[in-house]
Amino acid sequence: MSTTFTLFPRLTRPKFQPIIRAQHTHTMKKPQIYLDHASTTPLDPKVLKAILPYFSEKYGNPESLHEKGKEALIAVDDARETIAKFLNCRSREVIFCGTATEANNLAIFGTARANKDKGNHLITTKIEHSSVTEPFKQLEKEGFKVTYLDVDNEGFVNPEDVARALTPKTTLVSIMYANNEIGTIEPIKKIGRILAQHKAYFHTDACQAVGVESLDTKALNLDMMTINGSKIYGPKGIAVLYIKRDTKIEPLIHGGMHEFNMRAGTHNTPAIVGFAKAFDLIQKNKKNAHITKLRDKLIEGLLSKIPRSHINGPKGKTISHRLPNNINITIKSINAQEAVLHLDDAGIFVSTGSACKMGTPSPSNTLKALGLPRPQTLSTLRITLGKTTTEKEIDYVIRTLPKIIENLRNT
Amino acid sequence: MSTTFTLFPRLTRPKFQPIIRAQHTHTMKKPQIYLDHASTTPLDPKVLKAILPYFSEKYGNPESLHEKGKEALIAVDDARETIAKFLNCRSREVIFCGTATEANNLAIFGTARANKDKGNHLITTKIEHSSVTEPFKQLEKEGFKVTYLDVDNEGFVNPEDVARALTPKTTLVSIMYANNEIGTIEPIKKIGRILAQHKAYFHTDACQAVGVESLDTKALNLDMMTINGSKIYGPKGIAVLYIKRDTKIEPLIHGGMHEFNMRAGTHNTPAIVGFAKAFDLIQKNKKNAHITKLRDKLIEGLLSKIPRSHINGPKGKTISHRLPNNINITIKSINAQEAVLHLDDAGIFVSTGSACKMGTPSPSNTLKALGLPRPQTLSTLRITLGKTTTEKEIDYVIRTLPKIIENLRNT
Repeated sequence: MSTTFTLFPRLTRPKFQPIIRAQHTHTMKKPQIYLDHASTTPLDPKVLKAILPYFSEKYGNPESLHEKGKEALIAVDDARETIAKFLNCRSREVIFCGTATEANNLAIFGTARANKDKGNHLITTKIEHSSVTEPFKQLEKEGFKVTYLDVDNEGFVNPEDVARALTPKTTLVSIMYANNEIGTIEPIKKIGRILAQHKAYFHTDACQAVGVESLDTKALNLDMMTINGSKIYGPKGIAVLYIKRDTKIEPLIHGGMHEFNMRAGTHNTPAIVGFAKAFDLIQKNKKNAHITKLRDKLIEGLLSKIPRSHINGPKGKTISHRLPNNINITIKSINAQEAVLHLDDAGIFVSTGSACKMGTPSPSNTLKALGLPRPQTLSTLRITLGKTTTEKEIDYVIRTLPKIIENLRNT
Repeated sequence: MSTTFTLFPRLTRPKFQPIIRAQHTHTMKKPQIYLDHASTTPLDPKVLKAILPYFSEKYGNPESLHEKGKEALIAVDDARETIAKFLNCRSREVIFCGTATEANNLAIFGTARANKDKGNHLITTKIEHSSVTEPFKQLEKEGFKVTYLDVDNEGFVNPEDVARALTPKTTLVSIMYANNEIGTIEPIKKIGRILAQHKAYFHTDACQAVGVESLDTKALNLDMMTINGSKIYGPKGIAVLYIKRDTKIEPLIHGGMHEFNMRAGTHNTPAIVGFAKAFDLIQKNKKNAHITKLRDKLIEGLLSKIPRSHINGPKGKTISHRLPNNINITIKSINAQEAVLHLDDAGIFVSTGSACKMGTPSPSNTLKALGLPRPQTLSTLRITLGKTTTEKEIDYVIRTLPKIIENLRNT
């Protein structure tokens, strides 16, 4: 259960010689094509404008009784109400946390430990983000039994598998809303319907689903849901855990009575205000049709120009259940990390698997769960579009990426 | 051990009739005299300038391999080194957390639980911040024995009491560097010398001591130290826990391998950059002599004009061991909350006790530990000056506050 504090060696970049200098070398300026939006997003200038007054003017502590405290408290309360409206919940069910990782930890540790007397069985999947998987691994060390559900070859959880896994001792089911690597949107509503008949709490990590899927906590029968700011053009360092009233849960961080006793610590007012603003913007200005079109063009362009490549996650008949901005492509016989660095050199910023697994030498759990052989998991790129992605950028990637692959394969 | 999630009733402001309209009513503009710097501070404009590029330009995830990630990683690493230099420690001993509350929780839960096999005895004091006290209370429920040390009538811990409390089963001692309510600076160096002879880890919450006392972790013999941004004109939502190499400690938040496996979650690059900048500024531009002079003028002015009032914490011979910016004054026969609201009306922003205890109806633990009778604990104001506090502001408070008290006492 305990970990000695050892210094983890930081991943060093593999040494490489640039083997291709793409078109941009003819001009003076290297392009900056950011296609890693599932990792993090830039702050929307409108959000920055909304938060600026809370740094040096309305800087009070919302817990303070005086005017400076009151103006901060009003801002926090307003933000909470904005978010609650979109989640179709009470504002007091919106708990501000520091990161989505913390919110996931709070949901999982908080309910598992607080309900240990009712049962020690928990259910999750094999394709969760590490901020869900790691708490479950920790809980196994504390004596809990965890069922890790399989997914099909496109990453879908079968709701009937959830029903079959439930036992009278199950106290918590945590299933992500949309996968961060392969973009699979899980049948959360169907699973919610099944769990409405069972006492187990239902939590979903919805970080990748914001702006795409319904977040109506009542319609989805959710007890807890994690959403965060840094994937939706909002600030880093802020996330929300929706906790349904009367959920039996214990806090992770103890101290003051902030957040209705659920998360102690001085409120980060600018981040809270910015999160609500970003959330509001993404709900009101959805660009999913546009992004989907660009995604499909890029998929088609890459597959047609790169031999021995394939898309992981939903495609064909199921592509409507794929995140609009997500491409996950296996390109056989390449080293994905090397490809990322050569793409970087060409001004194209993409990822291998999930950013939070970067330091890890082991292959992605999600890709393993799809049944991909190990060499293929290490030959996979994740390309995630954003609301400012242009067709010109996509065209450049279609021209450049296949050449880089060809060179890499010929080295 | 478990807490049902109940909706904590928010403290409602006591209804009051303004009984005094101070001088400012003759002019158009109400003054804004912020004297609650121990609660939180405005962001220094220089810090804002330093962090702005990290919102919408250098917004990458430091875990990403590409250029956008690398520029964020460089910023985080530079910030870590800046802080390490002031703490006289290795940069990998600097762990970024979301709040000082979280850092205190990590230090206390992390070492107590990880070293349970070596002993279950812990030592702290009766005057700690709630983010230290509450984790200890939680650990008592988990079977730990906690010694809460007394303090003298000025709030000082006696190092010999620490020595006497140590047993072969003691694994952790946590004593604050400077008290947030009464400004007492504890003899951390002396306590460190005692603990150098004992296997127990030594943690200090140094949030109020930054910019005032030495933070040299080696000279102080510290194993862990908490510092944060929101008290030193830096951003909210960021804190550091110094953790000495080879400390046996388990993380509180599990997920990715961020912060050398000690704190999972996407890095809040702007906040980290801003924290380092604020830390650098406060170390290089200390205004303590100026603030001390204003504090002493204000103390003298208030005591001479308000009958039946006294200062809590170090004074007279020991005043050099008081935080330069702290005044804690008991004014008999007044309700401190009411006074705060009337002062607010006059444009003076102060606090009753610690801001984090605002929602609490119970009196301050620190004031109780000094031996103050209950009615006096509820008749106490905390006034904390800042680096921008002016003599003109202090003069206004000396004119205004005694009048408000007189009116309150006559109501």
